[in-house]
Amino acid sequence: MPSPVEPPSGTRDFLAGEVRRREAAFARIREVFERYGFDPLQTPAFERLDVLAGKYGDEGDKLIFKILRRGEWEATGEADLALRYDMTVPLARVVAGYGSQLPTPYKRYAIGPVWRADRPGKGRFREFAQCDVDVVGSSSPVADAEVVAAVADALDAVGLGEFRFLVNSRNALAGLLESYEVPAPLGGGVLITLDKLDKLPPDQVAAELEERGLSPDTAKVLVADLIADDAVERMRSMLAGSERGQEGLAEIDRFLELAGDPVGPGRLVFTPRLVRGLDYYTGIIWEVESPGMPGSIASGGRYDNLVAALGGPDVPATGGSLGLERILAALPDGGDEEGRLDVAVTIMDEESAPELTGLAVQLRRAGLRTGVYLGSSGKLGRQLKWAADQRARLALIYGPEERAAREITVRDMDSGAQSRVPVADIAEHLTQRA
Amino acid sequence: MPSPVEPPSGTRDFLAGEVRRREAAFARIREVFERYGFDPLQTPAFERLDVLAGKYGDEGDKLIFKILRRGEWEATGEADLALRYDMTVPLARVVAGYGSQLPTPYKRYAIGPVWRADRPGKGRFREFAQCDVDVVGSSSPVADAEVVAAVADALDAVGLGEFRFLVNSRNALAGLLESYEVPAPLGGGVLITLDKLDKLPPDQVAAELEERGLSPDTAKVLVADLIADDAVERMRSMLAGSERGQEGLAEIDRFLELAGDPVGPGRLVFTPRLVRGLDYYTGIIWEVESPGMPGSIASGGRYDNLVAALGGPDVPATGGSLGLERILAALPDGGDEEGRLDVAVTIMDEESAPELTGLAVQLRRAGLRTGVYLGSSGKLGRQLKWAADQRARLALIYGPEERAAREITVRDMDSGAQSRVPVADIAEHLTQRA
Repeated sequence: MPSPVEPPSGTRDFLAGEVRRREAAFARIREVFERYGFDPLQTPAFERLDVLAGKYGDEGDKLIFKILRRGEWEATGEADLALRYDMTVPLARVVAGYGSQLPTPYKRYAIGPVWRADRPGKGRFREFAQCDVDVVGSSSPVADAEVVAAVADALDAVGLGEFRFLVNSRNALAGLLESYEVPAPLGGGVLITLDKLDKLPPDQVAAELEERGLSPDTAKVLVADLIADDAVERMRSMLAGSERGQEGLAEIDRFLELAGDPVGPGRLVFTPRLVRGLDYYTGIIWEVESPGMPGSIASGGRYDNLVAALGGPDVPATGGSLGLERILAALPDGGDEEGRLDVAVTIMDEESAPELTGLAVQLRRAGLRTGVYLGSSGKLGRQLKWAADQRARLALIYGPEERAAREITVRDMDSGAQSRVPVADIAEHLTQRA
Repeated sequence: MPSPVEPPSGTRDFLAGEVRRREAAFARIREVFERYGFDPLQTPAFERLDVLAGKYGDEGDKLIFKILRRGEWEATGEADLALRYDMTVPLARVVAGYGSQLPTPYKRYAIGPVWRADRPGKGRFREFAQCDVDVVGSSSPVADAEVVAAVADALDAVGLGEFRFLVNSRNALAGLLESYEVPAPLGGGVLITLDKLDKLPPDQVAAELEERGLSPDTAKVLVADLIADDAVERMRSMLAGSERGQEGLAEIDRFLELAGDPVGPGRLVFTPRLVRGLDYYTGIIWEVESPGMPGSIASGGRYDNLVAALGGPDVPATGGSLGLERILAALPDGGDEEGRLDVAVTIMDEESAPELTGLAVQLRRAGLRTGVYLGSSGKLGRQLKWAADQRARLALIYGPEERAAREITVRDMDSGAQSRVPVADIAEHLTQRA
């Protein structure tokens, strides 16, 4: 039984340093998306259960946090609401509900927590931040390019450093299955198996393809082609005979042409073996990988049928999602300079307290992060220890001697150097020093 | 049955303008609290049910959103988690759990949604933002003063305009009951009734006091004294004979002395009839009222026993809470300049798209909010209508003629004036104009 002072399993309390680090990263991402012309959308933490149920497959459905009915219905043990599981279903609901009140196309971003009752583990939480960026209502390839350019700029803005986009197209993959004469009913399963190429050894993937019904030869050649150094050339020639494959290649080429420059040289890599597990993608798909980080830190693609399937109107859409917890975990520790006090105000006697609280408010209005001693000790040593604990840059001392002279002692907390400043000049003096 | 495209009853979707307005207000409040040396704290959206249950009285308990157990336990219909009902119980849990890892005293602020299954109504929501600021671990009156100074600065920062703090002390009220010889067991009930003085006519309040067991004379005089123009003087003289009352008066006077200057002249008003409904306050209590707004927009006080009662250690505490939804509703509409595009990029033909998406990314990196046409029309008129819908300041046009001349037409969307700028200079030109 967990201790009652811990947050619920799989959730976290964020103390000051971590809140600041997270909020700073969110703010930078938000700023990038705003510059790209995306609009923010905030939906409630919970949705009606019927809006979410059945949208995430059997496995996903089990991970939905459901909210018990209330009042006289509580005893039924039934749920009527559920915590948001992702940002996409709420988007589909909003698109369905607000229709023409939304701009066309609707470019929106959403940053916030989602909740999944997954088994908690290293880096896996039940409450975690997600960041989605989507364009609903445009089938233009420029929209696909805009999304990845915005994601690339956002990753740069948070200082992720090295990363690259693996790119493919669902149409190219469909063409590939045609070229290898994979029977249509096996197609979905074959793609799911091929998606494991970055985790399992090639032989094992080929074996699994055989189990799914491919001939040993086809399985072996397909795997070999996809992981070959010249996989791109092989794919291009394999797809020569497939109309759908040609369409996919054209899609990829156009995407590389539109997004290559914005995302940066060498950062977009046509990767024939990229599949993306989710089956709702209909065109371009992509995934961001960063050296030293397992799995992908962002992913997305075009999903022209999803909004309708989720209860929205039948509109084309393309978008991406950043795995914020992974990104946040990968960021260099920024230090927490922001948490330091600029000025710590000691209080040597009750009589001077009103003057000092007034001064503190002045300093704050001038933009200085200022703390006032709130303990019960009248000893300077104790109060300076408090100032040091707060990592204050400067401390103010205003004892009987200073008061008589209408001066305040300013102590540099790093060097210990002290100087006296007239009370009338203190705010200006401190503002200039900080 | 509500339409499936609406958010759940009592909750709201926030579209772009509203998100920006809310976030801007939160950011300003956050900035003030940071300058006062408060640290942010973020706790999960849900807590273990046993942490929340029994903490909000019978009425409050009924309003808690409970989360159904999962997996094989779902069928039991039992709940094990519950959505955060306020920010105070999570604070008590954190103080209990993190102990010496927290600064002493612990000055924290928290801004975020809380959830209550209240009957939705005008201005009453089931998901609403709350903002709390508290000092845990200090019994200094300076801490009480710091809290109200921070709240006053926060209200100023969001541009609320006129407001004032009504101030009283629970000790003064206890002394008052002593002076009127109210039997101790009736005290709590009498205070609850007196709390209605700002809503009900005085006669009705006096009648309710009689029902609670006061003599008609006592009830009448008590009410008359509290609502008199010279209520303050009457209270001061009534409390002359009560030790607890004297303690309360001294507390109020010290508070006015410490906070008066920071909060501003005339903004702190000793108000003998102020009671504050909640019974956990132990010292100074206050409430902020603003002309034309019913009820209070912020409130707080000292609550020295609450943290222990909520499961934390026995530490003194003082704090306040801002009713953000009320404040947000009262703010003047800031316009939504922020949502405007600085530059709308039209695309006249497919060939120029890569160059234009590249240019758009450059402009964004230079800080301009830039949109690219993502529709399917090749007609300039349609694309300029899109730019107008986006309230773009400038639109770029790059047709065959411009391309041949390596120039871009820049259209001022307000005046319709157009000029041609060499492609090589366009980024700089636009940055300077924006």
